[in-house]
Amino acid sequence: MIPTKSVPEVLHRARELVTPALQRAVRRLSPELRPLAEYHMGWCDADGCPTGSDGGKGIRPALAVLSAEAVGAPGATGVPGAVAVELVHNFSLIHDDVVDEDTERRHRPTVWALFGVGRAVIVGDALVALAQQVVLEPFEAYALDDGARALAGAEQGPATTCVAGVTTFGLAAGARAARCIADATAAMIAGQALDMAFESVSVVDVAGCLAMEAGKTGALLGCASAIGAVLGGADDRVVAALAAYGMELGLAFQAVDDLLGIWGDPAVTGKPAWSDLRQHKKTLPVAAALAESGPGAEELASLLACEHLEEAQIARAAHLVESCGGRQSATDEADRRLASALAALDQGGIVARAHAELADVARFVVEREH
Amino acid sequence: MIPTKSVPEVLHRARELVTPALQRAVRRLSPELRPLAEYHMGWCDADGCPTGSDGGKGIRPALAVLSAEAVGAPGATGVPGAVAVELVHNFSLIHDDVVDEDTERRHRPTVWALFGVGRAVIVGDALVALAQQVVLEPFEAYALDDGARALAGAEQGPATTCVAGVTTFGLAAGARAARCIADATAAMIAGQALDMAFESVSVVDVAGCLAMEAGKTGALLGCASAIGAVLGGADDRVVAALAAYGMELGLAFQAVDDLLGIWGDPAVTGKPAWSDLRQHKKTLPVAAALAESGPGAEELASLLACEHLEEAQIARAAHLVESCGGRQSATDEADRRLASALAALDQGGIVARAHAELADVARFVVEREH
Repeated sequence: MIPTKSVPEVLHRARELVTPALQRAVRRLSPELRPLAEYHMGWCDADGCPTGSDGGKGIRPALAVLSAEAVGAPGATGVPGAVAVELVHNFSLIHDDVVDEDTERRHRPTVWALFGVGRAVIVGDALVALAQQVVLEPFEAYALDDGARALAGAEQGPATTCVAGVTTFGLAAGARAARCIADATAAMIAGQALDMAFESVSVVDVAGCLAMEAGKTGALLGCASAIGAVLGGADDRVVAALAAYGMELGLAFQAVDDLLGIWGDPAVTGKPAWSDLRQHKKTLPVAAALAESGPGAEELASLLACEHLEEAQIARAAHLVESCGGRQSATDEADRRLASALAALDQGGIVARAHAELADVARFVVEREH
Repeated sequence: MIPTKSVPEVLHRARELVTPALQRAVRRLSPELRPLAEYHMGWCDADGCPTGSDGGKGIRPALAVLSAEAVGAPGATGVPGAVAVELVHNFSLIHDDVVDEDTERRHRPTVWALFGVGRAVIVGDALVALAQQVVLEPFEAYALDDGARALAGAEQGPATTCVAGVTTFGLAAGARAARCIADATAAMIAGQALDMAFESVSVVDVAGCLAMEAGKTGALLGCASAIGAVLGGADDRVVAALAAYGMELGLAFQAVDDLLGIWGDPAVTGKPAWSDLRQHKKTLPVAAALAESGPGAEELASLLACEHLEEAQIARAAHLVESCGGRQSATDEADRRLASALAALDQGGIVARAHAELADVARFVVEREH
């Protein structure tokens, strides 16, 4: 067994690599949009004054950096991919807040609440376009140097190299990474559309719930976990294994999130007890509980059909989700998906240290208090 | 002089090539989003019933097809680029209607007015991601055939070829086309952000106005005019000439649009006389008129500072824009930009017939009734 650094150290190392590049990318936005993006990222307050924060935990950037190292490339090779994934993730948060009319995120007003719907839509759009530019541009460094360009274009040549201190990669790697980002973005949007459609139906089945979560959460984690390897010029087999690891990890993460949304400790989650039930969210434990036949599931369905629930009714609904097996089912789902993610890493060809660190990150993500 | 087909014939030919591919692309959207996109495109009504319409004039698809032919490639080579450009254009219309709170477009309710802001935001997002997929996917056909893939990846090899009846292009062409789309999308969004910022200032200068129009209109026409050549594997010099043609054409088009926005025939434009002045739009003729010193410009500025204008005041403002030289200035701008567009075509390396047809399309676009 390879001794790994602790997960917080891995996350810290990736943040040190990725945050400066992410901040450089955001500085390229037009002067009208940059302050909104910097506010959303948590780097600045509403007046544009720096907050000193460097953003969240950084799971996605860590996955992108580790996925480059997983195929023997330096972690820096994964950085444009990490930046693109973070830009797409934040685009989706900004637009989701508009769609859901949420006024707060991480205890601060959302972008649309502060700057208006129009500007929130536009700055989200700008982040998606920027994400594509970030993965497609590095190879342009070669345009200045025909020799290096020929090298980069050659299918058999090294996928990455260093010109004038800038790590760049070949045309093929850039195109594959852009494809990876576009596909994940499309899947994420389809997942969001499905989630919106769920609002107008009373019952969602487990398969529908998983399909929605695969799109909304799995696709981008799959992309994050593969894009470093893509930029490192890995073959399709290793890329597919890493993407499967990320997708399974995303589904495990989402199952845990669904559990915390009902039974999470309010002191930790910052949300009231049984939060998702209050909001009538159609999550995995609820879908699994409703799939049971019997009086418990029937009582749950009729409770959830009420527009407004009293405190005692919410507590009763939470009890019913559990007694109908919804809590156990989601817990099993999380465990099964974590096992699948770890199994995907064993498909061979992954550097031992990165393998161990990816496994640690997966356990860390899934084994949050639940 | 090469005898060219009439412009309507050129537009028709491009539409015949592009519309089926565009419809196929839109059919890939998730079932929740596809009806919204098909409604917006004019192909279906609000209930999803086909209208029999194939959309607008199709200037952008024609430019993309002609730009492939301009470098000796078949027009079909430009089709994925034409589809991507149309998807980006329609994304921007859907989001602009949300931002501007416009309830009608082409005499029909806008997407957000019919389906809500949230769904309009999401379907716009889906079109951008789809645009990137459309230009990045064709080379994947090679993945099934290693020999063809090696050929496509080779920098010196033919840029396009035909595998199993599908015209595909090399990795390099796909990456360059994706870059072309991402850059144009980013510039268009920056132009939209600038336009929104203009709403909160009383006066915009000519340079600001042109910068906004270069982003909002020029960038995507530049992309449309170059992307066929990019997919056809043209060298950077020809691509740059075609992109310059499209950018200049976009600025000429916008100058004409600004003229029609004030002096267009209401019977033709479908808008009331002096429409842009009613809405206090900061367009080129107004910016040019305000740049004059003298009592006329001062009177115009004080009129435009009024929140509500009576009919006689609007007529007076239109008169002042003209007497201060704003109408002439915008007319000169349109002529100058058209001349620049035509000059860009002369930079060499463009196939004679496509050269003549591109010139005809430019004259057709600019010489609308003004």
